[in-house]
Amino acid sequence: MRLSKKYLSHVVFESNDSVSRGFDVVLLILIFGSVTIAVLDSVQSLHETYGSIFYSLEIGFTLLFTLEYLLRVWLTSKTWKYVLSFYGLVDLLAILPVFLSFFVANTQLLSVIRALRLLRIIRVLKLGRYLSEANFIRDSLRSSAPKIQIFLFSVLTIVLVMGTLMFVIEGPQHGFTSIPVSMYWAIVTLTTVGFGDITPSTPLGQFFASVIMLLGYAIIAVPTGIVTSEMSKRKKPDDFDSLKTCTNCGFDHLEQGDKYCRKCGGSV
Amino acid sequence: MRLSKKYLSHVVFESNDSVSRGFDVVLLILIFGSVTIAVLDSVQSLHETYGSIFYSLEIGFTLLFTLEYLLRVWLTSKTWKYVLSFYGLVDLLAILPVFLSFFVANTQLLSVIRALRLLRIIRVLKLGRYLSEANFIRDSLRSSAPKIQIFLFSVLTIVLVMGTLMFVIEGPQHGFTSIPVSMYWAIVTLTTVGFGDITPSTPLGQFFASVIMLLGYAIIAVPTGIVTSEMSKRKKPDDFDSLKTCTNCGFDHLEQGDKYCRKCGGSV
Amino acid sequence: MRLSKKYLSHVVFESNDSVSRGFDVVLLILIFGSVTIAVLDSVQSLHETYGSIFYSLEIGFTLLFTLEYLLRVWLTSKTWKYVLSFYGLVDLLAILPVFLSFFVANTQLLSVIRALRLLRIIRVLKLGRYLSEANFIRDSLRSSAPKIQIFLFSVLTIVLVMGTLMFVIEGPQHGFTSIPVSMYWAIVTLTTVGFGDITPSTPLGQFFASVIMLLGYAIIAVPTGIVTSEMSKRKKPDDFDSLKTCTNCGFDHLEQGDKYCRKCGGSV
Amino acid sequence: MRLSKKYLSHVVFESNDSVSRGFDVVLLILIFGSVTIAVLDSVQSLHETYGSIFYSLEIGFTLLFTLEYLLRVWLTSKTWKYVLSFYGLVDLLAILPVFLSFFVANTQLLSVIRALRLLRIIRVLKLGRYLSEANFIRDSLRSSAPKIQIFLFSVLTIVLVMGTLMFVIEGPQHGFTSIPVSMYWAIVTLTTVGFGDITPSTPLGQFFASVIMLLGYAIIAVPTGIVTSEMSKRKKPDDFDSLKTCTNCGFDHLEQGDKYCRKCGGSV
Repeated sequence: MRLSKKYLSHVVFESNDSVSRGFDVVLLILIFGSVTIAVLDSVQSLHETYGSIFYSLEIGFTLLFTLEYLLRVWLTSKTWKYVLSFYGLVDLLAILPVFLSFFVANTQLLSVIRALRLLRIIRVLKLGRYLSEANFIRDSLRSSAPKIQIFLFSVLTIVLVMGTLMFVIEGPQHGFTSIPVSMYWAIVTLTTVGFGDITPSTPLGQFFASVIMLLGYAIIAVPTGIVTSEMSKRKKPDDFDSLKTCTNCGFDHLEQGDKYCRKCGGSV
Repeated sequence: MRLSKKYLSHVVFESNDSVSRGFDVVLLILIFGSVTIAVLDSVQSLHETYGSIFYSLEIGFTLLFTLEYLLRVWLTSKTWKYVLSFYGLVDLLAILPVFLSFFVANTQLLSVIRALRLLRIIRVLKLGRYLSEANFIRDSLRSSAPKIQIFLFSVLTIVLVMGTLMFVIEGPQHGFTSIPVSMYWAIVTLTTVGFGDITPSTPLGQFFASVIMLLGYAIIAVPTGIVTSEMSKRKKPDDFDSLKTCTNCGFDHLEQGDKYCRKCGGSV
Repeated sequence: MRLSKKYLSHVVFESNDSVSRGFDVVLLILIFGSVTIAVLDSVQSLHETYGSIFYSLEIGFTLLFTLEYLLRVWLTSKTWKYVLSFYGLVDLLAILPVFLSFFVANTQLLSVIRALRLLRIIRVLKLGRYLSEANFIRDSLRSSAPKIQIFLFSVLTIVLVMGTLMFVIEGPQHGFTSIPVSMYWAIVTLTTVGFGDITPSTPLGQFFASVIMLLGYAIIAVPTGIVTSEMSKRKKPDDFDSLKTCTNCGFDHLEQGDKYCRKCGGSV
Repeated sequence: MRLSKKYLSHVVFESNDSVSRGFDVVLLILIFGSVTIAVLDSVQSLHETYGSIFYSLEIGFTLLFTLEYLLRVWLTSKTWKYVLSFYGLVDLLAILPVFLSFFVANTQLLSVIRALRLLRIIRVLKLGRYLSEANFIRDSLRSSAPKIQIFLFSVLTIVLVMGTLMFVIEGPQHGFTSIPVSMYWAIVTLTTVGFGDITPSTPLGQFFASVIMLLGYAIIAVPTGIVTSEMSKRKKPDDFDSLKTCTNCGFDHLEQGDKYCRKCGGSV
């Protein structure tokens, strides 16, 4: 029994062989299935026609998730640590709303909690751990993070200054009802989204809006530059074509100009 | 006759000399001509004035395409394989609607099928096979594909989570009628398109919309970074044209202006 | 007199010393002045108040441009070649409308021709010839041009296919009145501009719109990648920090690893 | 007392130890606090409920800023130079409006001046001087500045030409009331913001709008390319942290994992 539990634990928590990866794939399908049901159920016309089928499927998915939750609780050696962990709470929240719906009638609140089931996707994204491509993007973004943060801070300062300016220039009569709303407009404009729900009407407002747009158009270059230069730097190790192998020790990261192996010191 | 058939086959299916390339160019002009007619015919006022001319031209183009289709069927050794292939079906669909229009009266459906004629452009794009520039872009995108796919998967996860969140926050009374519609809005916002047909009205909705916009503004850097670093890497082999080899020691990274080898000091 | 004509010719047509550059700067100010007048005169309220002042200034600018035009005609040895050249015609068009306005009363047509005066800015942009920064951008774009063209061709193919598709799906009742209008909408969407004057209403239309948006979001990476990799390549000569100077002949483009000078062959 | 003044001066004007940095952080919190109050106070509903609390806090912040201003005046050796400097005036403007509000009743004008308090954030951004990340972005942008300026100049020329063209094509009856408004529209379109408050209605106008959009979509590559290639160049010196020097021959490009020198073969 101990070996079986150890094996099950391996299947459920890791994903480095075909069985454990299969478990993750099944879980992924279940999560996407349950999320798809929730998405379709939100369409009024579909809800009226297939509402009961959706409900049955929902119950089915929830039972499977409950089984999985109980399995995880049983398998972990430090049960409480898992239950109170981020993943543990997310797993609990994924099944709780349906059980609560038997007692509570407030469906609006329940759908809010049920939406949290989407967070479970994060767990499944650990599958990506074995995809070097995903790692590449994640690592590039992680090492770009401090620069991106400073960039976002600068953007928010511009948004604050420009939002206040536009609030003063255009005023509530042209839709800029308060500084927070003006800041919302400044973000809409600076990021080049441009909904058009609020637009400047006065010549001075249009002039400053133009400045913000050109600014946004120019500074989009900054995050792009940061990530690109980070990715270009990371790219190098892939250039195996430009590397040669040491004939003594087999170390295969020597550069073309190297005369001695970096690992064993032998002449190349 | 056998030689003639072989020659015709070469002209129709390949494009590596002036005659076969000429055939492709004529085909390209015919496709663009027929597509232009279809585009102009969709304008109500032009249809009323020139409708009959458009119809005659349409018949003419269709006859030429039919001739070409029969030629291809006759020339291919494995006829059924061609007829059932992707290109074969596209070629058939390009001529079928006009013939069907003699029997069927549903013009709306016919125009749907006729629109598929546009797919024939793909066949002509094989002309690009000989344009190294097109190859450069295609290759860069192909090797970026796995990273771009993961990026799109992450974007869709964000869209799913944010769409659900906005549906819960704003609700049907502010235009977010269902989760699919909210997801459509999230894509409109994240990609910085910003139609403005649906916009958040509540302060909380505007706050989360701002988060999505800033997110979209920052993560546009990711595909750009991926493609750019891919293209920068690919760029290098092209530079070999500008390099020359030392005749003494064989060092092959000399630049065109160099008079002496950098490695052995010998005159080049 | 001949020397004076030669000197004047140098001042008017070249810009490599302070006097000839001063002439270009004065011309630049005059062009911007006349353009600013035209811009301000188009505002109804300003036209009503300052219309007559604008008109006087307009006459003044035109006289100066006429003087300059006659000077150019007199100075060029091959007069007809200049008069019929692109610049010659632009220079003529810059002064013609005002003279025509004495005879013709159609002001709408005249303002169209007067707008062409803006093309004169191109001539003054030759000032940039001496700005290495402008050259850098121009050269990068010029060598990116074939790739950008192929990119634009692909974009237009997507626009054609997607425009037809959306015309068929949404139809005239939702604002997609014809294929050209649908193509206009597809460009608005693909380039992430998103005016919102035409928006999809049907679920299928919104789905395909989402596809176009994500496509546009992803392929923005292509022109960026092209130009960036072109600029990065061009950047290299600027890296003077990583270069060393030959102690024998003074050649200053040696790389750190070089043991012999590329120009004189001396040991470094 | 002299030493104390010198110490205080160090704390207030510099930020290279924990005490002086602490002073900057406190200042940052105060500025953000006062700005947050101003932002929230602009919301009508919050103003009505918490108006008096906001006012008290405002007075408190102003007193602290006044204290800080007097401290700075007292500490600087060249008092008038500070008072009349950019920072001196910004510091004065940050406190003046509240004192003026005791005498003047025009709150609209006062809120304009009070908005200038936001400029104080710039002073605090000197904190960033010690953040190498912020320096990296600032330096990259600074050395990109001349190219970005030329780019913006080109963009404005396009905006001028396209604005005039659209004014002539669409005219006041379709919302393009004057050339300045048309230029505002051209900026909205070229930067891919696309509010949709003004949109072309005529086929010719939609055609030229499409050209502007494709142009804007393609030239976004230019600032991105400039900044990215600048950042990629700058990246290199940062990598020195990860390199070590050979103790035998002094070759200083060894990587952390290397055991033998690549140049002399000696053990490291």
